Amino acid sequence: MPLENGFKELTRLDDALEDFLKKLNPINRSGIISIEKGKQRVLGKDIIADRNIPHFDRAAMDGFAVRAEDTFGATQSSPVLFNVNDSVGLKKCKRISTGSPVPKNANAIVKIEDAESKNGKVKIFESVSPLENVSEAGEDIKKGEEVFRRGHQLRNEDIGLLRMLGIEDIKVFDKPKVGIIPTGEEVIPPGSKPDKGEVIESNSIILKLMVKQWGGVPFIEEIIEDNPSKIGEAIKSNLKKDIITLIGGSSVGDRDHAYEVIDDIGTIYTHGTAIKPGKPVILGEAEDTPILGLPGYPAANIITSILFLRPVLRKIGRMKQKPMRTIGAKLDQKIHSPLGFKTYTRVKVEDGIAKHIRTSGSGVLSSITKSDGFIVIDEDTEGLNPGSLVEVNLFE
Amino acid sequence: MPLENGFKELTRLDDALEDFLKKLNPINRSGIISIEKGKQRVLGKDIIADRNIPHFDRAAMDGFAVRAEDTFGATQSSPVLFNVNDSVGLKKCKRISTGSPVPKNANAIVKIEDAESKNGKVKIFESVSPLENVSEAGEDIKKGEEVFRRGHQLRNEDIGLLRMLGIEDIKVFDKPKVGIIPTGEEVIPPGSKPDKGEVIESNSIILKLMVKQWGGVPFIEEIIEDNPSKIGEAIKSNLKKDIITLIGGSSVGDRDHAYEVIDDIGTIYTHGTAIKPGKPVILGEAEDTPILGLPGYPAANIITSILFLRPVLRKIGRMKQKPMRTIGAKLDQKIHSPLGFKTYTRVKVEDGIAKHIRTSGSGVLSSITKSDGFIVIDEDTEGLNPGSLVEVNLFE
Repeated sequence: MPLENGFKELTRLDDALEDFLKKLNPINRSGIISIEKGKQRVLGKDIIADRNIPHFDRAAMDGFAVRAEDTFGATQSSPVLFNVNDSVGLKKCKRISTGSPVPKNANAIVKIEDAESKNGKVKIFESVSPLENVSEAGEDIKKGEEVFRRGHQLRNEDIGLLRMLGIEDIKVFDKPKVGIIPTGEEVIPPGSKPDKGEVIESNSIILKLMVKQWGGVPFIEEIIEDNPSKIGEAIKSNLKKDIITLIGGSSVGDRDHAYEVIDDIGTIYTHGTAIKPGKPVILGEAEDTPILGLPGYPAANIITSILFLRPVLRKIGRMKQKPMRTIGAKLDQKIHSPLGFKTYTRVKVEDGIAKHIRTSGSGVLSSITKSDGFIVIDEDTEGLNPGSLVEVNLFE
Repeated sequence: MPLENGFKELTRLDDALEDFLKKLNPINRSGIISIEKGKQRVLGKDIIADRNIPHFDRAAMDGFAVRAEDTFGATQSSPVLFNVNDSVGLKKCKRISTGSPVPKNANAIVKIEDAESKNGKVKIFESVSPLENVSEAGEDIKKGEEVFRRGHQLRNEDIGLLRMLGIEDIKVFDKPKVGIIPTGEEVIPPGSKPDKGEVIESNSIILKLMVKQWGGVPFIEEIIEDNPSKIGEAIKSNLKKDIITLIGGSSVGDRDHAYEVIDDIGTIYTHGTAIKPGKPVILGEAEDTPILGLPGYPAANIITSILFLRPVLRKIGRMKQKPMRTIGAKLDQKIHSPLGFKTYTRVKVEDGIAKHIRTSGSGVLSSITKSDGFIVIDEDTEGLNPGSLVEVNLFE
């Protein structure tokens, strides 16, 4: 067992991830849903407008609808006199509000502040050109226009536009199903009191919430003990999922079986990445289902989920990769980082100052819950000096 | 009617907002929920740990549990010999995996790479100090420690920590209820085909999705026509909500009744803000319920919801104000902005280049759906030059 005393090699994060993402096949299943449930969903076909929005010329200003040619020559000193009427014609104008349809015969709107109305007559002090202060039909969306492409992930505003277009049902790609398999003899389910050597299993609920946030559908399996054949069975029973995450046992210790099991069932691309925390990550697949072996230590589990599962989920789910929410801050102290490792240092941000949160180990979940986010220190940097400006990636 | 031809004055955004937020009372209602539903919820009481996490000393490394004093003097050239055993004592050590409880009598762990085991004996090549490679009980959380304060908004990771602490139910503040009242003669409900002069009402579904995203509970009322007494009734029937948003009629035109109605029922703090788009905003209240009069033009509606409703909702809901998700980009062209106005220019970002999206008016929803986000240009800036580095606030 060449791996017993360590990893064969540690792959740089970017290389491991890029390589893995390239191998993934985006989801092809799709279905029809109501736009009310369309937030964050990915369109399964192009949306073409079947109408103009708006479908009529409308007033862009409050004022008077006129034939533009009748206003020519109007100035402050020599206004043109119009009758205010229900219809528009030669020297006949109509009072109109913003957004209202431009009446028949009218082709421009004189702004209310350029007119003075009295006893059914109105003096126009400014000439207007044809279409002045008119929002033309199709100004927002033109009939036949491709509004959204297949693959577009819907935002709040996009759903409003679909409604405006009269589209209430849409074809979307399915959300990726993510199997979550917690393993370990030392972890027990919630609701029981831990004996010596036991802790309540907490990774799966965090992973479940993250998967939902990132646009997937989580399925949590029961806790599997550190037994290769049982872990293997759990993986096999999840091969119809779009992604499998195995929590725990991903390192090279006596009780770490993830490597041998995944290697047996499928293929391993990466074991061990040059990151801290989160070194013992496995990236592999079986029967075209990507498998992520994530460390069971809570802080490492969370960081590696963000670093690997998030982009994998987005790729499989056909969602654009998305930046994390960040805030800028200034470091209050020196932070060391070993050369050759990309480190994810937890910090608390107060009044623009990022304070390093003690990270006594990747097993300490409170190193995350006490912090607001993490800063990334690259492989070729030994650390950051006090006063450095850093970008903090927020935990959410 | 002094307002007919314009606003009395336009208030700067920051002043209007700061003034308004100061007047708001955070929610006091609370209830008990399962942590499974705890994401983004705000704790209604402090969480104190009733146990150590972990509640036992555990191995921080794979290796051999020993009495540290028995290893003193061990070096590469003169290792100390131990028996491998089921219990630990004088020169008796026990094989141990990371995370396992430290056995009785042991007080340190020798790393597996500093030992060589053969036939029930093990050579130790490095001495260890007491507690070396041991994670002490309470390392993560100490019994009696205040884990989270009342008012803390729960993130994924925090919920994992609650589970680890054996806490499955929590007291949380209620989510703010937001009444959404769309108004306007020209807007019609979904499912009908618009006649000339009509458009399908699309603001309320966008607002509903935004309210959910920001941690509130949306309630959409039926569309109210431009009739002051009907608008007044709709507001009154929503006064038990935590926030009321009135969509449309917030400007100073003939058909704009929001000002007079809110002024009649309650108090108006601000009418008209120096922003583009979104000038015709009303901030007021009635019977201690904040009322936001938002412009009905879609782009203006969205921008003002982000600028005003989002912070109001967070304040009422006791959530920390949160930065928007941003990406950095470089402007491809000059962007003009009128002095005295804070402008929110929609841009599309491709390969790090922010491209200005034509904004022919605040009525054009596609100016938002075609863009990735907006950049903010301050009141005292006339515009931005090509090549400027900008921060793009993303629509989500």
